[in-house]
Amino acid sequence: LIERLTVSVDGMGGDNAPEMVVAGLARASQKLEGVDFLLFGDVEVLDPLVASHGGLGSFCTIRHSPDIITNDMKPTSALRSGRESSMYKAISAVAEGEAQAMISAGNTGALMAIATIVLRTIPGISRPAIAKCFPTQRGESVMLDLGANVECDADNLVQFAVMGEAYARNIIGLKQPTVGVLNIGVEDLKGRSSVREAASILQTIDLPIKFAGFVEGDDLAKGTVDVIVTDGFTGNIALKTAEGTAKLFVHFLRQALTASPMTKLGAMLLKPALKKFSRQFDPRTYDGAMLVGLNGVCIKAHGGTDALGFSNALGVAVDLVRGNFNDRIKEDLASLVSAPVEPKAAAVR
Amino acid sequence: LIERLTVSVDGMGGDNAPEMVVAGLARASQKLEGVDFLLFGDVEVLDPLVASHGGLGSFCTIRHSPDIITNDMKPTSALRSGRESSMYKAISAVAEGEAQAMISAGNTGALMAIATIVLRTIPGISRPAIAKCFPTQRGESVMLDLGANVECDADNLVQFAVMGEAYARNIIGLKQPTVGVLNIGVEDLKGRSSVREAASILQTIDLPIKFAGFVEGDDLAKGTVDVIVTDGFTGNIALKTAEGTAKLFVHFLRQALTASPMTKLGAMLLKPALKKFSRQFDPRTYDGAMLVGLNGVCIKAHGGTDALGFSNALGVAVDLVRGNFNDRIKEDLASLVSAPVEPKAAAVR
Repeated sequence: LIERLTVSVDGMGGDNAPEMVVAGLARASQKLEGVDFLLFGDVEVLDPLVASHGGLGSFCTIRHSPDIITNDMKPTSALRSGRESSMYKAISAVAEGEAQAMISAGNTGALMAIATIVLRTIPGISRPAIAKCFPTQRGESVMLDLGANVECDADNLVQFAVMGEAYARNIIGLKQPTVGVLNIGVEDLKGRSSVREAASILQTIDLPIKFAGFVEGDDLAKGTVDVIVTDGFTGNIALKTAEGTAKLFVHFLRQALTASPMTKLGAMLLKPALKKFSRQFDPRTYDGAMLVGLNGVCIKAHGGTDALGFSNALGVAVDLVRGNFNDRIKEDLASLVSAPVEPKAAAVR
Repeated sequence: LIERLTVSVDGMGGDNAPEMVVAGLARASQKLEGVDFLLFGDVEVLDPLVASHGGLGSFCTIRHSPDIITNDMKPTSALRSGRESSMYKAISAVAEGEAQAMISAGNTGALMAIATIVLRTIPGISRPAIAKCFPTQRGESVMLDLGANVECDADNLVQFAVMGEAYARNIIGLKQPTVGVLNIGVEDLKGRSSVREAASILQTIDLPIKFAGFVEGDDLAKGTVDVIVTDGFTGNIALKTAEGTAKLFVHFLRQALTASPMTKLGAMLLKPALKKFSRQFDPRTYDGAMLVGLNGVCIKAHGGTDALGFSNALGVAVDLVRGNFNDRIKEDLASLVSAPVEPKAAAVR
């Protein structure tokens, strides 16, 4: 028997909210077992929407919140004036124990700011980070930070390694994920001092982490390691570069497939295979970034997502709660603090 | 009538040297008009190789240099003990006016170190950078720095903008290239202080540059701007991430095309279209990174390149010499120094 859990939902966040959010909940309620939703937003708008998805009503409680945090709102003003917003209230529901996780497709900066103030960081974590999975040649990897911290020192990166490793176990389901630090070369002497120092700490400290040393940009797609650790500036640019390149490829492939009657015929024969292929690269399959390092599971769905992407992001929230993600991080951090710094065997790579 | 020019060539640099280098020269000599080669390396090895490519001999002079700078050599030791190497001598030929450009597929760090010492930076440029073109949805863009400078301040980035703009005019052939600074958001308040400061200088200074503000990772593939300015850490990782993603895509596409007899038939019908498609993404088409900011044209071909890639990189060298690339940068820098800092009209973007 699966224990029931509750996810609090920002009903008004995202380009296609609230319709997309409610449709996503309906889709998720058919797929996920034992999950209830606490849906925050304008009750007059949400009520008929929930009613229109038969059956959703029994898993979904609507809570009125009059305000909306828009995409162009600055984090500081969201913090100051957002207390009656659907986002703020959905986060507070986790802090108050009403929900075990929250999800929003709204303003990332505001979500980060409010969640950090309301949920606070886990003891031992100085800054939360944004983590997300992406497709690789070997399957799936997770990268962090993806934009929460523009500058990171070695200690931040080591904490990201601990959190990323726990994330890979919970979400990708790997027993012993490998961890790499993103750099511009695999030699020990290359790169910024922060990444060199982080690597040397990860190499010497006695943590239950399989540290594989440095990885480079092309290792992301190869899936050389399961967890890629980097600062938020580099991680954000690397992920968006990869997503952009994949889109460009699809664009050129479409051109090639529709160039002539003969290529169109060829494309027809390839349809099922290409469908599977494009699903592998569909960003909706990988929707759901987590704000890791906070006392509570807090998931950011893509701002432009649809019901399918939103329901996948909800699945990430549920997996993290059921895998006791935050407890596992706390255990690792405890061993990080108590660990005697003595050389480990050589790096895996 | 085209004026003859000479390119000095490191005959021993690169994974497939010297065979690949000589084959690349042979290919280039059939394509490029009025270009002579000064080929440095082991004369006993190079002599028969050049002789085996009929006709190359009349465009190619071999100069003996006994030493080779290997890929695992550190820049400092290459500088100290590399004076009799093919790389060092090919660079010196440019400094001494024997050649107008040099090319090597060897050790990047060593090339950077030796070229900086031997050729020196252009007055007004504090650090050289590595620049390279890549394919986009709109055609081609150039990005710099790609790894020469791990940390960059605002002044470095502004100088990169000047050099990148001149590069785009010379190599892509654009009349008025647009320039963007890579960041994690397009809003003025986002990102590192160095990129914010660089953008504000580029926005206010009176330079003949079409500055388009900030761009993000996915703008690389879109081709939103013609010149992407960034530090060497981020640029290196972004370019390798894009290349890796393209390779992953090819891998999955090949899987899809060979999945069944029916897909194989479809793939056969698509063959010519897919060939054109894969040429668009062939890294050899874009081989030839330039060390910009030095008194002399210095081109780095990919370490693992072949004759086709090497001859394309040679074409980049020739285009930069014929376009008076360095003179144009000096002019821009002169106007940068004398320019009164007064607000320009709003950014293009």
